[in-house]
Amino acid sequence: MSGDGRRRDGRVVALCGGIGGAKLALGLARVVPADRLTMLVNTGDDFQHLGLHVSPDIDTVTYTLAGRANAETGWGRDGESWRFMAAVRALGGPDWFALGDTDLATKAVRTQRLAEGARLTTVTGEIARALGVGCTILPASDDRIATVLDTDEGRLAFQQYFVARRWQPRVAALAFEGAATARPAPEALAALTDPALEAIVICPSNPWLSIDPMLAVPGIREALRAAAAPVVAVAPLIGGAAVKGPLAKLMGELGLAVSLQAIADHYDDFLNVLIADETDSAVTVAGPATVFAPTLMQSLDDRIALAQRVLAAARDHAAGDAR
Amino acid sequence: MSGDGRRRDGRVVALCGGIGGAKLALGLARVVPADRLTMLVNTGDDFQHLGLHVSPDIDTVTYTLAGRANAETGWGRDGESWRFMAAVRALGGPDWFALGDTDLATKAVRTQRLAEGARLTTVTGEIARALGVGCTILPASDDRIATVLDTDEGRLAFQQYFVARRWQPRVAALAFEGAATARPAPEALAALTDPALEAIVICPSNPWLSIDPMLAVPGIREALRAAAAPVVAVAPLIGGAAVKGPLAKLMGELGLAVSLQAIADHYDDFLNVLIADETDSAVTVAGPATVFAPTLMQSLDDRIALAQRVLAAARDHAAGDAR
Repeated sequence: MSGDGRRRDGRVVALCGGIGGAKLALGLARVVPADRLTMLVNTGDDFQHLGLHVSPDIDTVTYTLAGRANAETGWGRDGESWRFMAAVRALGGPDWFALGDTDLATKAVRTQRLAEGARLTTVTGEIARALGVGCTILPASDDRIATVLDTDEGRLAFQQYFVARRWQPRVAALAFEGAATARPAPEALAALTDPALEAIVICPSNPWLSIDPMLAVPGIREALRAAAAPVVAVAPLIGGAAVKGPLAKLMGELGLAVSLQAIADHYDDFLNVLIADETDSAVTVAGPATVFAPTLMQSLDDRIALAQRVLAAARDHAAGDAR
Repeated sequence: MSGDGRRRDGRVVALCGGIGGAKLALGLARVVPADRLTMLVNTGDDFQHLGLHVSPDIDTVTYTLAGRANAETGWGRDGESWRFMAAVRALGGPDWFALGDTDLATKAVRTQRLAEGARLTTVTGEIARALGVGCTILPASDDRIATVLDTDEGRLAFQQYFVARRWQPRVAALAFEGAATARPAPEALAALTDPALEAIVICPSNPWLSIDPMLAVPGIREALRAAAAPVVAVAPLIGGAAVKGPLAKLMGELGLAVSLQAIADHYDDFLNVLIADETDSAVTVAGPATVFAPTLMQSLDDRIALAQRVLAAARDHAAGDAR
């Protein structure tokens, strides 16, 4: 980050995937004014299903910030009904990806707008506003990016791996189809290069599955490297284990130690501060500054407290850097 | 029809559109064994909406024959719920075309199968079988055909005219986009040219909006002209008025008399028998043989009785013809 002493007005950009990242997103949304918070959300999980453009992470973040998320599952909408899925099943259609009757509307409206020529950035904003989300939710790119995994069961599309096969296949390598030729969305790039940024936050999402698809878009990683604001990541590992999901399993399969150091190394070209869980305070991490704090987000208060710690760490780093 | 005296095993093909035609389809399904009845259904109303391939007439016929139609509306499924539509509306999405939560499953499964490369004929059969329909439901073509209308409000896609604008614009001309280059589906052509056919029935659907899109597919009209079996049409006019929908208004706008004769003339290159309502028995129609019978189908018994009269008329005509 720069030490030019320029006054910042507290703008924050946070990169995140779905469920885990959305928890911190909610915390950030409670402590950062809506007009100063931008969520950059993974679209590598997006796919066409039953004719619809499904953007699982954008929807999870949108529903979460709208206060409409299903609290039990972490994905989908609250008060959901499932008559569509039952009817699909009765027709012998694919029922491995759950789409609730009201969640389906989000997918259908998105599909319609994209078919009309609207950009994913535009549609994402329209849906978020319609649901009452105050902050800005953006994809890193309007172009299609598809996470695919080379596994012991062959090459699998992300949802085949994650939902249909419940991340049980062994992963040898990942790729982000379309990313190399994708253009960063102007809004995403503008948010990351805003001179008024106070912090860029990497939420505790899976670095390989949820953050990398965004970093793979030309210009995004470069923007993080060049950022004037501190880049602060919350480690998605506690006590050497993933809080949820395939992270630890995946790291092992990729030949990595399941460690805070591996997370720090993965982000080492742009990371200033790593926030790790307080129970890991005996661990030494080379590279970024390390701050230990409670990172397990069970309650809303946990989310808010972690968001405050993240922003405080960014301010501390900026102050130290400017010293 | 031919007078070769070949033994027929009672196979029947009926052409129809949506609601009005589906009433006679249900009657036919009660009097013709399922393995001998083929419904050829209009796809000129098909369109892409909210990402989905909507085939309104195929679905109306399918639900009707499955005993799953909404008895009140004539379209859509029984016991339907509308949470999807409410959610679309809340998102500011298009709500002018009603899609129920379970009806939506039919559309979504069709879209998925078509995206997988399946033909509309195949998918239509899969959905009909899954819903318990015994007879065969076919499109005239697997290729896309789109009814468009030149009106005093400009060129309108069918659903814009029919649903969004409730058929109020004045129609100057109709066209069936894609029809000229469409290929007839092999199954449709095989059904129409089956030497074992006993009758080809034109249901009391709108000749211009519901039957013509099928006749516009190269090979279909020719098959009717060359058919060995009698072609019997049920007139969709009673007392010079349409039972329902835009037929009379449309005929007037097209410069036609709203008369049985205009219906007979419209089909005159292949029609053998016109079934007109008994209340019109004073009317003389030049061209086809005319049979007067109750054609207003209010009850299931009405449908069955009309189906029986249609088949009897075909048999009478064949017998006379063979005499």
